This record gives sequence, structure tokens and C-alpha cells, in this order.
Amino acid sequence: MPTNLEDAVPAPDSAAADAARQRQATLTKPAGALGRLEDLSVWAAAVQGHCPPSPFERIRVIVFAGDHGIAHAGVSAFPPQVTAQMVQNFLAGGAAVNVLARAAGAGVRVVDIAVDAETTAEVSGFKVRRGSGRIDREDALTTEETRQAFAAGTEIADEEIDAGADLLICGDMGIGNTTAAAVIVAALTGSEPVEVVGRGTGIDDDTWMRKLAAIRDALRRARASTAPLALLQVAGGADIAAMTGFLAQAAVRRTPVLLDGLVPTTAALVAQDITPAAVQWWLACHRSPEPAHAIALSRLGLDPILDLGLRLGEGTGALLALPVLDAAVRALGEMTTFAEAGVSERT
Amino acid sequence: MPTNLEDAVPAPDSAAADAARQRQATLTKPAGALGRLEDLSVWAAAVQGHCPPSPFERIRVIVFAGDHGIAHAGVSAFPPQVTAQMVQNFLAGGAAVNVLARAAGAGVRVVDIAVDAETTAEVSGFKVRRGSGRIDREDALTTEETRQAFAAGTEIADEEIDAGADLLICGDMGIGNTTAAAVIVAALTGSEPVEVVGRGTGIDDDTWMRKLAAIRDALRRARASTAPLALLQVAGGADIAAMTGFLAQAAVRRTPVLLDGLVPTTAALVAQDITPAAVQWWLACHRSPEPAHAIALSRLGLDPILDLGLRLGEGTGALLALPVLDAAVRALGEMTTFAEAGVSERT
Repeated sequence: MPTNLEDAVPAPDSAAADAARQRQATLTKPAGALGRLEDLSVWAAAVQGHCPPSPFERIRVIVFAGDHGIAHAGVSAFPPQVTAQMVQNFLAGGAAVNVLARAAGAGVRVVDIAVDAETTAEVSGFKVRRGSGRIDREDALTTEETRQAFAAGTEIADEEIDAGADLLICGDMGIGNTTAAAVIVAALTGSEPVEVVGRGTGIDDDTWMRKLAAIRDALRRARASTAPLALLQVAGGADIAAMTGFLAQAAVRRTPVLLDGLVPTTAALVAQDITPAAVQWWLACHRSPEPAHAIALSRLGLDPILDLGLRLGEGTGALLALPVLDAAVRALGEMTTFAEAGVSERT
Repeated sequence: MPTNLEDAVPAPDSAAADAARQRQATLTKPAGALGRLEDLSVWAAAVQGHCPPSPFERIRVIVFAGDHGIAHAGVSAFPPQVTAQMVQNFLAGGAAVNVLARAAGAGVRVVDIAVDAETTAEVSGFKVRRGSGRIDREDALTTEETRQAFAAGTEIADEEIDAGADLLICGDMGIGNTTAAAVIVAALTGSEPVEVVGRGTGIDDDTWMRKLAAIRDALRRARASTAPLALLQVAGGADIAAMTGFLAQAAVRRTPVLLDGLVPTTAALVAQDITPAAVQWWLACHRSPEPAHAIALSRLGLDPILDLGLRLGEGTGALLALPVLDAAVRALGEMTTFAEAGVSERT
């Protein structure tokens, strides 16, 4: 973790936010009639530091891929090799995230942080190890691997921002990753295993019982770790540690991020623990059926834009919220005012 | 009303819907993981009659503008002349619907059905009268005007569909129109005035009391009218009658429609009363804070896609839901299957 990261995150621009609120009141619509869009336009002005904000144009989805030893405890409906197969699917452009990113005009980058297979050089530059440890019995990572994974996330954020990204999306892929995420959320919020366990990819009741037992055993090991990075080391995984570094560094770099489902939101919860101001740079995009997601969102104080029953990950929920954010920005910038249009104001 | 309209609406294609459900099960994602998008893709296949469905490409928003005599009872936060001023704003491209339609790639057409002002020939071709009657004291329309307004809606639907529209959006503009809509919803659902009265454009408590009284008085007059067109005549307005004809005729022509907020949804409720099968051709796009909207949606059996606190009308809520529908269609059509991608299926 960089020195003084906790002090390195600036606040978004409150003057730009105020200007956005004032401009909203002049537009040809009843005050507040655009609902959530008005709040989103204020947020966009604040994170861009000017009003009206510009439409986001260089949007990048980063899919953090990693395997989890806990998958071998039989906690998922899918076999572990699906992680590597889906990495290939992302590269071939055939996954949901690819389709939705094309529709939304966003680029997709997949990074292998801890896939339990050999992957191509295109994605393996930040690889920390093959699969994180089986967290019901052993630590997910060593101290050095945790540092390395976190640093990978910060470097990826720097690369994307230096290349011109003005909006980032944090996505995930990894069989077993909702089990690790649920443990982290439970540890950070004092929740019981049964409160955080979810159906993940759609597991049956027997698998749900094994997942609950895995979360319980991992949480017992994790309870002793209160420091954020120590928690990632004991009960997280390299992918979640990388997402944590990514989210924190994006905030340091004044670059907004759209959170997707449970796993990136879990990383956000850890990053908030490191640097509380960072949450102002993130938007929650959708509410998944994972119980731990709702708990993490509540702790972060974030209200998701959509509620569509999505439980896919990859960044798909964030991509679906993107047009709402875009519309909010364009409405603030392009609508005429009462004065310009000669429309009477309220009596 | 055309002869036998109630029998003229076909059902969407159930074979295409079945094919869409089967295709969803083969795509590289856990079954059901795209949540509501999967249902939307099945609906799109059904209304298009083929699987996979094609992205909608010729999308037209029709904004039905009309004044309401009830506005002179002081039920709105804005003066009646705003309706005509906003028609000019639509034509100049500066209103929220224009901005959101540009972002979504949709065209906007505004039609003056009953604006209480002289408007340009560009919008006045279907004008029925200047302002509908003050429904707390008199009928909104004559029998002939009701027929004429309903027919205007069917002709507008025919024009748009004949010109190539593959998806229609029904929007509204009119000071006082939520008062008339609330009366219609109350009459059709047996609701009390206090259950259907809403804040409209953002009225204060005194205005709310006047609106409640207006709804109560109009509802007393409307209770005797059970036939759909008679109800529109007594307590509706020419704009709502035109939207009713528009929605019914779109269904006759096998053309899907996105509903926006309270006023188009009220027209949908009336159209469903005329021809119950039509509801299968419509999507509810968002849930507004208007109490009558929730009541109408519930009666229609429609579950809105978004819940963003929007209360603007014009078609804005439907335009915001459009990218979700588009993503649903593209995901079904463009995602690779487990077999194509070599991804393992669930164990």
C-alpha cells in the first residue's frame, strides 16, 4: 500500500456540484422532475470539476479475473476451469460484458490476476499466482502477494487513466469469488454467515450448505484480521486485492468509477476502510440478489441506480447504468433554460 | 372506435418467445444471471416474431400535447400557457425528451391534440379543439370529439408504422393532465380520490387540496360512465383519447410500444378495457411517484423496468429504459453459446 494513501484522496469539486444544482433549477422542467438523474448530474459535475459536465467518452471496463481455492470445496454451480474459459471468451468478444460494452461504447480489458491456468501474455502481465488459497483452511495470499496484487490494481488504474480514460468500470470474473467476497463483507460489517451467503451463479440447496460452511470456516479465520490488507490476505484473494488497489488509486487520480455487483463492491468496502473519502468517486450501479451486496452497499452509503435482478458480474450491471448517467449529463448540458425557451416558470 | 377493435389485436408470437427462452439457456452465463434482461429479450422476440430479435432501429417518440380546462381550477404548479410554450420547446429541440431521444437514437414527433393556443401547421394537423373541458363541471369532450381524438391516435400510429417505425414511445405534455388521468384511473379501478391524487409537477399543499377536490368532483361525474370511450368523454381529454387510440392501433399493427409515466399508462388502462390483448404489446418503463401510476401498472399487470423518481412525462422515462431493452436484445443475439466458446456448463 502506498504511503499515506489514506490522505491522498481529494474530495470532488463542491463548487461544480453547487453550480450543477443551480443550473438544474433553470432547466425547462419542474424542479426535481428528472429524479435520480439530477443527482447523477451533480455527481458528474463534482467528479469532473466543472459545470456543466461533459459526456463521458473514454470509458473502460476492467475485468479482474481470478480463481479461488475455495471453489474446490464445491461452493459453485460451475467447475473452476470456467474462469480461464471465460477469459478466452472475453478476448474473443462473445461474453455479455463484450456485447453490452459495444452497445454502450465502452472498451473492455481483461486482466488475469490469479487465474488457475496459463493465460496469454495479453492478459497475464499482472498475474500474482495461479488461484488464491482455499480460505476455509489457509490464507488466500502471502503478505507479499497481497502487496503485489494491490499494487497491480493501482498500476492498472494508472495505466488506464494515463491512456485517457475518463470513467472506469470495475468488473469481476472468478468461480468461487462470491464466497470470498461474502466472507470479507461479513468480517467488515459484523454479519453472520447466513446473512451474507447467496446463490452466486445459481447454486442448489446442497451447494448452498457447503458454501455456508465454507464462509463460516473462513470467517472464523478472518475475525482476527482487522486491518484491510490483512483481511484480504487471510480471506480475500488476489483479484479482490487488485480491485481494492484499483478503486483506491482511481480516487487518488480523481477518476470516477462505476461499481458492478458483489465482488467489486466488496473491494470498495475494503478500499473505503483504507481511505474513506474514496467512496465519493464511485457510483453503485445495480442491486444484485446477493445478500452481501445489499449489506456492503448500505455500509458504503450507496444507492444503486438499477434493480434488474442481475447476478452475472463482469461489469454488466455498470454498463447497463451507463446510459442513465450519460442521459443525466446530457440533460444538464443540453436542455434549454426557462429564459432561453420563453417558458413560464411556476406560479 | 373501429368496428371489432376488441378482436383485432393479435397475440405476440409464442413460438419466437419459446425459441428465445431456449437460446438464453445456451449462452455463456449462468441461467437467469441477466435477470430482467432475459425476460425483455423474450418479449422482443415475441413482438418481432423471430428469434433472435433484431435491435430496434426506427424508434419514434410521439408526444401528445393537450390542455385541460381543469388547470383553471388551480391544480398545477405551472400556468396553462406552459403547454404551448413547451410545444415550441420540443420543436426547437431543447426539452428533456429531445436530449434523451438524441442520446438514444430516437426521433421525436409532437402532436397538438388539444393545446389551448394556435400552433404551427407542423403539429396541428390532428387538433381536436383548444383545451378539453373543465371536468369537475362539464364533459371533457363531445361524443364526436372523443371519436375524432381516438381516430387521430389510430391514424398517427398508422402513419408512424407505415413510415417504418419498429418501436413506438407514447409521451405526454399538458398542464393539468395528471388530474384527468387520476380521475380515469380511479374510475376504472374503483379507487378513492385520495388514493390517486399526486404531486404532479410538484404542487404545494394548498394546490394539492384543490387537485383533490377537482378529482373528487370529476369522479362523481365520471362514475356513471362505464364504457371506455364514454369515460374519456366525461372525465378524460382529447390527448388521453388520442393516446388510447394510438396504443390500441399499435397493437393491431403488431408494433410494440414503450409506455412512459402516469398519463400514457392511463391511456393504456383504457385501451386494455377496449381490447385486453393489447397489453402484451406494451412495456412499462419506469415507476413514477404518482400514486395513480402504481395503481394503473398493477391493474395492467406490468412491472416497470426503472425506478428513478422521474415525474416529467414527455416520454423521458421510456427513453431511459430503451438502452436496457436494447442491451437485452443484443445480449440474446450476440453472446456466444457454451458450445461455441468451449465453456463448461454447470456441473
